[in-house]
Amino acid sequence: MTQAFRTIGIDIGGTAIKIAVVWNDGRVVESRQIPTQADAGPEAAQARILACIAALQQAHGLESAAMRALGMDSAGIIDSTHNLVLDAPNLRSWQRYPLAARLGAALGVPAFLENDVNAMAYGEWHCGAGRGVRDLLCLTLGTGVGGGLVLNGELYRGASGAAGEVGHMSLDRNGPRCACGNFGCLERYVGAQYIVARAQAMLERDPRSSSLRDMAANLITPLALTEAAAAGDGIAAAVWEETGIWLGVALASLVNVLNPERVVIGGGVAQAGELLLAPARRTILERAMALPAARAEVVTAALGNDAAVVGAAMLALARAGVA
Amino acid sequence: MTQAFRTIGIDIGGTAIKIAVVWNDGRVVESRQIPTQADAGPEAAQARILACIAALQQAHGLESAAMRALGMDSAGIIDSTHNLVLDAPNLRSWQRYPLAARLGAALGVPAFLENDVNAMAYGEWHCGAGRGVRDLLCLTLGTGVGGGLVLNGELYRGASGAAGEVGHMSLDRNGPRCACGNFGCLERYVGAQYIVARAQAMLERDPRSSSLRDMAANLITPLALTEAAAAGDGIAAAVWEETGIWLGVALASLVNVLNPERVVIGGGVAQAGELLLAPARRTILERAMALPAARAEVVTAALGNDAAVVGAAMLALARAGVA
Repeated sequence: MTQAFRTIGIDIGGTAIKIAVVWNDGRVVESRQIPTQADAGPEAAQARILACIAALQQAHGLESAAMRALGMDSAGIIDSTHNLVLDAPNLRSWQRYPLAARLGAALGVPAFLENDVNAMAYGEWHCGAGRGVRDLLCLTLGTGVGGGLVLNGELYRGASGAAGEVGHMSLDRNGPRCACGNFGCLERYVGAQYIVARAQAMLERDPRSSSLRDMAANLITPLALTEAAAAGDGIAAAVWEETGIWLGVALASLVNVLNPERVVIGGGVAQAGELLLAPARRTILERAMALPAARAEVVTAALGNDAAVVGAAMLALARAGVA
Repeated sequence: MTQAFRTIGIDIGGTAIKIAVVWNDGRVVESRQIPTQADAGPEAAQARILACIAALQQAHGLESAAMRALGMDSAGIIDSTHNLVLDAPNLRSWQRYPLAARLGAALGVPAFLENDVNAMAYGEWHCGAGRGVRDLLCLTLGTGVGGGLVLNGELYRGASGAAGEVGHMSLDRNGPRCACGNFGCLERYVGAQYIVARAQAMLERDPRSSSLRDMAANLITPLALTEAAAAGDGIAAAVWEETGIWLGVALASLVNVLNPERVVIGGGVAQAGELLLAPARRTILERAMALPAARAEVVTAALGNDAAVVGAAMLALARAGVA
């Protein structure tokens, strides 16, 4: 049993950077946010990150050496071997800037950078809804649909660190074009904007009364659909049913290919909970092979918005050989 | 560097059992076949397998202890932890019979049983077309479509040993029903009988002259289509083009999810070679994300019918801690 100690995780988003003091079992001690100011470039952010870390260290009496490692994550294509951002739409000027190395050098600990969805998957696996399993598939559903894999008890990154793009599995060779260039991608059916478009299409062709009809178009969001369905709105329920079936069609294929022990569903859209997961589970049982379908437990994520920052911290400890 | 030695691999099929003496680098010394006689049950087969092994040992001066381990593979659902067949359509009465344990005890070496497609993937990875990569996807195309995965440099079996069923990824939610119960499965488009059906449908609606028109229906096989296409038959070429696109649609999704360094395509249908692989590669580049698409090298299998027996032998050495 490793002695308890605290470390730091940093989640770099396009608009905010989250910096958290985390126990080595994954519990968050305190989390702070600072603006990313992506356009000001990575050097400016580096100074503000170090100031925030210094403040957190002082507040918690946390010495740099005691944290053993520094874990970071960011959206985009990450070279996790060299801890560099290779391509991130919201962090254009940050590409190949050695932020992890600079922060690590400033603090005197090894620092590691990971893709945000991989960090989320690892966090859920280490101390969230994926705890205790060997083979985990983790999906994040929001504007985009991403995924992370822990296979044979290890984070799986693929040959160029790009594995896990489950949002861009094609569910229909001739389906609608996706922003990625492919056709009929999962994201094209369950991404937030496409759920909203489904609701609008259903409202047009389904004559039933619905509280959604009184809403301004821009107020129809996945959250509004969840609230309406929970209040008994038939059209909102049908939107989630259809969305859950599409999710289930993709998961059935993934269950056949990966035979995961658990499938963790996170992200804003996952707040629909059973409205989304019940039809997805039913579809997996209807469509996937019996043995892997029976084995795959589909659950909602447990760590919420902390999954990535916690996962980044835990992964850094593992990569530093501490955990 | 491990010293060179020879071991034995056994591939148990529904009609024939292949028993091969194999060097520990995967080269086959000699391979023999005996009939499975599945209905006679596993005990009868066990005696015949031991007799064949004894004959091979004598022919090659191979002592039991020197082979270090015994590797076996079989079609079906395999419990590789306990080395038992759980379910195999062609070996009904063999289920849960401890054939591996009995053979291992008779020879005084540890014996291991693996699923045949996993063994094939491992064989291609160890000493075939997948050699030297960390992340490999291996497909076998025939009457059925199967797959095996080597990820992070390890055979990936999934939570119940059922991983790799890439033939049952759905490429169209509302596509034709597959024998597995799902709809629009890859196997439903590229399984041998569906390639033949595609040829028949094309012959009906495409007025071009074709050597296939002079053939009896039962002579139109994937091999006949390959020969016709190689001889310049436009309809046969179109059949392979469409088949390769379907394969590519599935591979594009797999490339996005798994980001493999290499994709090895084996099985009888893969003998179509570039007729099949060229459109598949083109479709991956058109449909998968740029980074993983550029990374995934799609090649034909190298070990042919020996892949499984070699893979079973190599995997047994690895599991015995020898290799």
